[in-house]
Amino acid sequence: MTGELMSVLSPHRRRPQLSPLEPSRLEITRNTAPATPPPSQTLVFGHTFTDHMLTIPWDAVSGWGTPQIKPYGPLQLEPSATVLHYAQTLFEGMKAYRDEAGNVTLFRPDMNMKRMNNSARRIALPTFNGDALLDLIKQLVRIDKHWIPKEPGHSLYVRPTLIGNQKAIGVGPPNEALLFVILSPVGPYYPSGFKPVALYGTTEFVRAAPGGTGAFKLGVNYAPGVLPQKSAAALGYSQNLWLHGPEHHLTEVTEVRPFRCWTPRRLTVSAATELVTPPLDGMILPGVTRDSVLALAREHASGKKRLPNLADKLIISERGVTMKEVKAAAAAGRLVEMFGAGTAAVISPVDRIGYMGEDVHIPTGEDGMGPVSRPIWTELVGRQWGAIASEWSVPV
Amino acid sequence: MTGELMSVLSPHRRRPQLSPLEPSRLEITRNTAPATPPPSQTLVFGHTFTDHMLTIPWDAVSGWGTPQIKPYGPLQLEPSATVLHYAQTLFEGMKAYRDEAGNVTLFRPDMNMKRMNNSARRIALPTFNGDALLDLIKQLVRIDKHWIPKEPGHSLYVRPTLIGNQKAIGVGPPNEALLFVILSPVGPYYPSGFKPVALYGTTEFVRAAPGGTGAFKLGVNYAPGVLPQKSAAALGYSQNLWLHGPEHHLTEVTEVRPFRCWTPRRLTVSAATELVTPPLDGMILPGVTRDSVLALAREHASGKKRLPNLADKLIISERGVTMKEVKAAAAAGRLVEMFGAGTAAVISPVDRIGYMGEDVHIPTGEDGMGPVSRPIWTELVGRQWGAIASEWSVPV
Repeated sequence: MTGELMSVLSPHRRRPQLSPLEPSRLEITRNTAPATPPPSQTLVFGHTFTDHMLTIPWDAVSGWGTPQIKPYGPLQLEPSATVLHYAQTLFEGMKAYRDEAGNVTLFRPDMNMKRMNNSARRIALPTFNGDALLDLIKQLVRIDKHWIPKEPGHSLYVRPTLIGNQKAIGVGPPNEALLFVILSPVGPYYPSGFKPVALYGTTEFVRAAPGGTGAFKLGVNYAPGVLPQKSAAALGYSQNLWLHGPEHHLTEVTEVRPFRCWTPRRLTVSAATELVTPPLDGMILPGVTRDSVLALAREHASGKKRLPNLADKLIISERGVTMKEVKAAAAAGRLVEMFGAGTAAVISPVDRIGYMGEDVHIPTGEDGMGPVSRPIWTELVGRQWGAIASEWSVPV
Repeated sequence: MTGELMSVLSPHRRRPQLSPLEPSRLEITRNTAPATPPPSQTLVFGHTFTDHMLTIPWDAVSGWGTPQIKPYGPLQLEPSATVLHYAQTLFEGMKAYRDEAGNVTLFRPDMNMKRMNNSARRIALPTFNGDALLDLIKQLVRIDKHWIPKEPGHSLYVRPTLIGNQKAIGVGPPNEALLFVILSPVGPYYPSGFKPVALYGTTEFVRAAPGGTGAFKLGVNYAPGVLPQKSAAALGYSQNLWLHGPEHHLTEVTEVRPFRCWTPRRLTVSAATELVTPPLDGMILPGVTRDSVLALAREHASGKKRLPNLADKLIISERGVTMKEVKAAAAAGRLVEMFGAGTAAVISPVDRIGYMGEDVHIPTGEDGMGPVSRPIWTELVGRQWGAIASEWSVPV
């Protein structure tokens, strides 16, 4: 009796009553005027969307509402909606692939669901059961799977987004939110072979700082990078290589396309080769492709699964790397290659870094890739596209 | 002839053809079902909006489009709109006041227009003629001026917002944007006298960093502060006092309400009193109220306009202040008062700072304010509310 009364009075009492994200409540409204997917060769990243989208409302009183798959179309947002004023938004990027037999798969989607919940906690948006959202995403992809281009290297980009949607201009945890998922057919990042990129070592602007939001996939990490990217482009570089602190530690690369590329680096150390990438120190996004590259390299190094044509002796390091070290290695001929990793490009080779008024030149192979990235890329895309069976590939 | 040909070929050729923001193109659609403004005592900040809003579209091909004043209502945004994914948004906050004679004024709106353009440049959104936008804002306020509550201390909060609205998920300068202005009647920040706030000296999270966006009024500076604010509230503090660097320099205060408060601080130095606030070092928002407080204090100190009841000898400093200095001054009894400044509260006194596990207590006067802030506040609100004539007050 007393216990019951106390629980009624407790401010936490209402929490258990909030509805969880529930796939069984899904309502589907078919698009009665479906579009014809455009020819694959005309696709521009992120400009074409499929016939349907998934929306799931949330509010602080009742929790997650009815998931709906419905025709792709405009969202109605109040002019006072939180996201429009205070940037309360987060997103994920993942791809659905179709193998030669016609099977559709997602690549390590559990990683995206986990990261999305971490982002939600950081930006004070509601969390959810990742398996439940994944179930709904699969249903959406199945309905629009004919939008996945048949050509090799093509895929369906999946973009889950969660926005604060409170109808009042106050900064705080919103009492309304909206989760939505849209799908966009995309071509290969490098349609005619790998093209190494030139990076601008950026010290005038920062992308992230200790105690900031750099380790989370939040909208706030992206728009502020547009001006620095324009500045880098004006100097002839394609993207910013964000350098941190007085020693100019390498952190991340911003692409014009919306992906963070990680920058594993390889330095020849005595008889072995070292694959180096900056550690997850709170300023760096825990990338799915980054994690996959490291996992494949470690499997190779441990002998668990050797990758053809990759150096026998490989040291894998997550440690800080400074521009001084990169310059010294390049000057000494010890720098083997440099590349970024991300969902869009998978592997993105680098051939030049503009740094403090001069260019540091990075070796690249004939096809743009180097001796470490090439065998790792081959294994990775084999798993993504279904040519190599693996647990990372999840049936839709 | 050659000159003409060259100008046709020049990549900059199109720029002059972009339409400027043009008030004479304004179209007005009256709300045929206007609402009755609610009783003033029921107003909650940012929850009530007037009958009309102003919208102005922009695109990269034609520039600024037709300004429209129309009934307040939902915006239709594509699910792929830039603002929803990459936080490309900025805003301003200003107030329209009504004096006893019924005249409506804005307070230093030129400062907001200038800051808004600075924000636009930083986040790669289009700039505009500030006088033109101000003209349109005045027309909007005039149409809804009956929404300004008649009670003393009340006002109409004006919220201009500019969002990236490109219908494609790519990070870059958007090819579409939308500027909109909404109005919200607000009551006094402290309806029953000043109430000093307790701040939590925050070192676990950062709001801004050198090279970042802290000096611009961008959405990205706000949502990341919600989680730290919740953490501070759980410890019994109302807001975060952001401390920067190894010496814990005071920077800004985040409020639950959407305003940055500046923290002028006064330390007794020999026979004079020092009013101190951190300098505009790139991490701090150039606040209109901050600037106004400094201007009034400087007019007083120089003898140009003496403020009644304010100490004759006043030193005004924009310089770094560390928590070590604050603690020492408090311990020595040299700390006279501490307050923040912002559009919402105007002056917000502080009585306590939680810092590294202990509380630093700050003196406050009987009414919550101190001997420096009280005379400055009196002059400032006198100018805002029209009791004291000044150039800062701009007729609508």
